Amino acid sequence: MDRNSFFWKIFDGRLPPPPCADTLGIEFAAIDGERGTVEVNFEAKPGFLNPAGNVQGGFLAAMLDDTMGPALAATLAAGEFAPTVNLNVQFHRPAIAGPLKGIGRVVLRGREICQLSAELLQSDKIVATATATAIIRKA
Amino acid sequence: MDRNSFFWKIFDGRLPPPPCADTLGIEFAAIDGERGTVEVNFEAKPGFLNPAGNVQGGFLAAMLDDTMGPALAATLAAGEFAPTVNLNVQFHRPAIAGPLKGIGRVVLRGREICQLSAELLQSDKIVATATATAIIRKA
Repeated sequence: MDRNSFFWKIFDGRLPPPPCADTLGIEFAAIDGERGTVEVNFEAKPGFLNPAGNVQGGFLAAMLDDTMGPALAATLAAGEFAPTVNLNVQFHRPAIAGPLKGIGRVVLRGREICQLSAELLQSDKIVATATATAIIRKA
Repeated sequence: MDRNSFFWKIFDGRLPPPPCADTLGIEFAAIDGERGTVEVNFEAKPGFLNPAGNVQGGFLAAMLDDTMGPALAATLAAGEFAPTVNLNVQFHRPAIAGPLKGIGRVVLRGREICQLSAELLQSDKIVATATATAIIRKA
């Protein structure tokens, strides 16, 4: 954890939040930059809905990606970034427009290779789970 | 393929397109409802960008999901739908705001279990690939 990393600069308001955070309605409910854990609130907007009136699965994937990404980003040093190289999502039940909560963690924090996992909940029920691999790079 | 399935009703303008199609800037360039293949044009909007100024990976996942989903949906009968139960995405290189193209296909078309795959390109280079499993259900 490094308070001068890009994640904490954004969190502290020293850098603007990325556009995708606004699109997904992100609010951080809890972050632990030492353990690599986060709780993130999202808002599924009407524009995310599929023909069945549920949230298109890809937007749930985007929320899970933006849960696991910050869990790792919060642990990085200044000048480091960590692109996701793969993302695996399991869909459990439909989600509707409105609030969702992502709970994410760094499962393995290697010097380069990191394994991440997350759950996405709506009304306290899991709607989707995910794992991802990210690789730490220096800018 | 059934011209009275929900996919073709939307395609023919007999049902409104889903909101997520507008959000992702979807235009169908080619569809084969017998073979289960599609080419889909997308538009990555400024609101999809991450702190590095690239498209957040989750939105690429959403595009891949909305390439594979229609490839299968175009083959369904009226009254059938096919929720995705898992989605696996591999990220190859960064994508920027602007046009992308998805190419998707039904790899295995079982009576219930279907295996799907897709590539997502920008400027003729693959930026991400994906596979998914979907299960055909009757409404």
